[in-house]
Amino acid sequence: MTKEKAIRLLDAATGRKACDLVIKNAKVVNVYTHEIQNGDLFIDNGLIVGIDGERKAEKEIDAKGAYIVPGFIDGHCHIESSHLTPTAFSDMVVPYGTTSVIADPHEICNVCGSDAMAYMLKSGKNATLSIFYMYPSCVPATPFEHAGCILNAKEIEEFIDDESVLGLGEMMNYPGVINADGMVLDKLATAYSRKKNIDGHAPNVRSSDLDGYIGVGITTDHECATSDELKERIARGMYVMLRQGTACKNVLELVKGIDDKNYRWALFCTDDRQPETIAKYGHLNHGVNLAIGAGLNPVTAICMATINAAECYGLKDRGAIAPGKRADFFITEKLTDIKAEQVFIAGKLAAKNGKILSPSKPVKAQGIEGRMNVKDFSKEKLKLRLRSDHVRIIDIIPGQVVTKAGEAYVARDEEGCWMHDGENDILKLAVVERHNGLGNVAVALIRGYGMKHGAVATSIAHDSHNIIVIGDNDEDMATAVENLISLGGGITMVKDGKILDNHRLEVGGLMTGDGAQEVCKTLERMHETAYGELGVSKDVDPFMTLCFMALPVIPEYKLTDIGLFDVTKFDFVDINLD
Amino acid sequence: MTKEKAIRLLDAATGRKACDLVIKNAKVVNVYTHEIQNGDLFIDNGLIVGIDGERKAEKEIDAKGAYIVPGFIDGHCHIESSHLTPTAFSDMVVPYGTTSVIADPHEICNVCGSDAMAYMLKSGKNATLSIFYMYPSCVPATPFEHAGCILNAKEIEEFIDDESVLGLGEMMNYPGVINADGMVLDKLATAYSRKKNIDGHAPNVRSSDLDGYIGVGITTDHECATSDELKERIARGMYVMLRQGTACKNVLELVKGIDDKNYRWALFCTDDRQPETIAKYGHLNHGVNLAIGAGLNPVTAICMATINAAECYGLKDRGAIAPGKRADFFITEKLTDIKAEQVFIAGKLAAKNGKILSPSKPVKAQGIEGRMNVKDFSKEKLKLRLRSDHVRIIDIIPGQVVTKAGEAYVARDEEGCWMHDGENDILKLAVVERHNGLGNVAVALIRGYGMKHGAVATSIAHDSHNIIVIGDNDEDMATAVENLISLGGGITMVKDGKILDNHRLEVGGLMTGDGAQEVCKTLERMHETAYGELGVSKDVDPFMTLCFMALPVIPEYKLTDIGLFDVTKFDFVDINLD
Repeated sequence: MTKEKAIRLLDAATGRKACDLVIKNAKVVNVYTHEIQNGDLFIDNGLIVGIDGERKAEKEIDAKGAYIVPGFIDGHCHIESSHLTPTAFSDMVVPYGTTSVIADPHEICNVCGSDAMAYMLKSGKNATLSIFYMYPSCVPATPFEHAGCILNAKEIEEFIDDESVLGLGEMMNYPGVINADGMVLDKLATAYSRKKNIDGHAPNVRSSDLDGYIGVGITTDHECATSDELKERIARGMYVMLRQGTACKNVLELVKGIDDKNYRWALFCTDDRQPETIAKYGHLNHGVNLAIGAGLNPVTAICMATINAAECYGLKDRGAIAPGKRADFFITEKLTDIKAEQVFIAGKLAAKNGKILSPSKPVKAQGIEGRMNVKDFSKEKLKLRLRSDHVRIIDIIPGQVVTKAGEAYVARDEEGCWMHDGENDILKLAVVERHNGLGNVAVALIRGYGMKHGAVATSIAHDSHNIIVIGDNDEDMATAVENLISLGGGITMVKDGKILDNHRLEVGGLMTGDGAQEVCKTLERMHETAYGELGVSKDVDPFMTLCFMALPVIPEYKLTDIGLFDVTKFDFVDINLD
Repeated sequence: MTKEKAIRLLDAATGRKACDLVIKNAKVVNVYTHEIQNGDLFIDNGLIVGIDGERKAEKEIDAKGAYIVPGFIDGHCHIESSHLTPTAFSDMVVPYGTTSVIADPHEICNVCGSDAMAYMLKSGKNATLSIFYMYPSCVPATPFEHAGCILNAKEIEEFIDDESVLGLGEMMNYPGVINADGMVLDKLATAYSRKKNIDGHAPNVRSSDLDGYIGVGITTDHECATSDELKERIARGMYVMLRQGTACKNVLELVKGIDDKNYRWALFCTDDRQPETIAKYGHLNHGVNLAIGAGLNPVTAICMATINAAECYGLKDRGAIAPGKRADFFITEKLTDIKAEQVFIAGKLAAKNGKILSPSKPVKAQGIEGRMNVKDFSKEKLKLRLRSDHVRIIDIIPGQVVTKAGEAYVARDEEGCWMHDGENDILKLAVVERHNGLGNVAVALIRGYGMKHGAVATSIAHDSHNIIVIGDNDEDMATAVENLISLGGGITMVKDGKILDNHRLEVGGLMTGDGAQEVCKTLERMHETAYGELGVSKDVDPFMTLCFMALPVIPEYKLTDIGLFDVTKFDFVDINLD
């Protein structure tokens, strides 16, 4: 609020001036009382003025008895998972009734550090959607790989005072917290000194360790898998998020733990949601509708998706239809199956019937386009020389990001190098360092991907986002890597030296300024090619599976640019078993 | 939280070090889940560590199955109403389980402005009780009297960034807000720019005006008189306080409006609570127990008195028994009649069985002692020369601060001056300006006080706190005023030139560093004298009634240092009717 805005609001509220807009015949959902108020909703200068009263308005919309619901606030998401830049993401999610998000730009910051943060802030400020950020707390995610940068307390200080930065992002290094690691606590201290929030991420941390983790001021969680965990965390003062992402879908389990007392401390979030999932099922509304479908009272669910998130993050200007709040809301026919028919942001109609009406103006991704700093890459580096036929192998578990630590007997050529054998569904996997020109290329073997012939490469490879490539032959793999470098990042598929298709992600190798529709069309086409021409197993997602094979915090075997990593032992292991 | 505290908390939580204290066999009230948790509560370094777990402690207390309740937070109070300095107030209220208060030093700031604010902050920081302040928004309260100073946006800027100052105090000038007065909005803007709270005070403001008042960011209210008003305000996004003061007792009416949805936006407060009321009925616990007695669920009532107040004022470090929160709590046998048997503040036993164990060290009230700047006062100035026998008169309504605009026919001497007539219970009332040496003395007539002979004078006279004196003869009245000046403020009673008794309030004429016990003893003795020797009517409180006779915002007739004021007409009126 400012003095000028206050004067205008007072004039509008008291009828001294006409309001910009009235929405007549509305059923307004009141998140304070849980009542439905029938009346005419007045809006002026982007703010809610009030319901009914002796007022006039310049413009009139008839809600015809439909409900007005405060705009949804996504408690935690990674915009990068949508493959879209913040402005393109805004255009995609606003039509679903999401009007604010709290985003952690962890992925892009792993690639381009402060440059990425600056870009995300600038792009976020240009978006119709309100985009708030949590500054990534764990870059790099682990010391077992090379990311694009290292963000410590010093780097955090550079951005944390920005008004769009609400605090420190998910503190995944929970062992570091619990063991009182000095560098980790220095990061927390940047939030302490500003009284800003700190988000949590601590799967399976329980009882005394959880006391410590929460006790040092980590106030949210989105990693609960069971309703028991949810209850345990809320009882200790945490806000718990019911997540409905693409891979992690927790709403239906967690909603069992919500009751009429503890709901106050629960939110919804999407975390990692792929563009196809958004296109097919919607955005935050998907989780909300699932919860309502499972029996949660619709107004309770709406409170969780609105005022609770606003309270959790100290966003005093939103989360409710009340005087002086931002006029972020949507109109829906029903509360049992919420569908944002008309979405208003700051009092302006921003989307109607699923279509964005006021697309956000993109921001040039200066300095973070491309970012493929690969040194001395050659086909030779993909050779996998083995000492024995008996080797460690990454076993894909269909539908999961966890792998199994497998073993296999493989064929070798006269030089002792691995040879593809069509019979056993073993392929070569390589990670090519792309940030610092270190020249690192690590190679391992993987089973269960199903591809018959060719190569798939991507620059999305959590959390360091080096290049990851899979294939049956070094030629196609090398072509894929080289093509990806020339694209500036994305996803590519190669067969017999021919590039089959590309999904270009020019912003840090993770995002594109292209619209959601084009991205979804490309991805659909590429999935078809992967399953068809390349013969990838229908049990796995050809691209998402690949993305998680370099993430050395999820068991059991993973491959980083340094080598094969056994997450259970928390150490690198030799590929050769004998 | 700081890095050092975090390290220590983590060591204590995980059992790497012994905790300071464990309270065994406790029933801990959980304000997040509304459950009662049976267990051992561990405390270290002033903070809650957790319940149970593999931990040791240096010291052990057995709760023997009693309840542990988070320390109560008084959402709104004026410490000055207790006649005690902040440190003495702390000693008085902590034994009742109040561990934090949000105080508006409106009274003392009317007397000594920034000097008072500096003193209150310093004294507050010395108190065992956590004292937070809202910077007074309406000094002077009205332009119809002379206060000790004028505090505008510029003066507010001087203090609002102090970490103990949570925002702007009750905005009583609701007409100024609603009419978008520039000076008023400048004050609000000091809070806007810091994202600090603004407290409300807007009795009877409803519908559209209320939309405006709330819409400009005024987020609390403690002036609801009916449960309908409470509901109306909560529905618009306000936190509403259930007040139980000495004169204003709203809990039993307002609690009728609380339900299991809207309770989240309700708090308790004491506002103006006299020392005798505290001594007799307790502090915030009184209102809480009244609400529980009226049928409110005890845990709901506790949430309102703890976590809700913490949320309302952004006090993230308190309001719950949860890891990392301040160890402010008390032990009570029952939840139906809450009695703080042992009160802990920051993990230390601060009071037991109603007695303070660690009295706060007083702070010298440098520069704001005395402050009786009266110029050219003489008995002559008390003379009331009338043009006619037919006059306007202030009619006291027993038990209320509202008066009636009365008329009377009175006797006059040969000079035309009012003469006391024992038959009709009319006395002389005078207000003597004491802040700026203006020499103002205004005189009027008042009916219903009952005093037979003598004078009572006090320097507590809301809101400007000039000297107010009542009497049947000018000699005793003048003696009372002169004695009060020499005391440096307080209350005094005079009869036949003899000083009957004094209550010395040396700090700005409003507070004393003497302990609560002494203050209560003095006031009890003085009440006896007033009702006995002076013959004041039992229907009125001899001192409190007087205090409100100079408050020109409460109808109908009031007297300021400028003259007789008709609050209904919002203008001064002539005492002569013919």
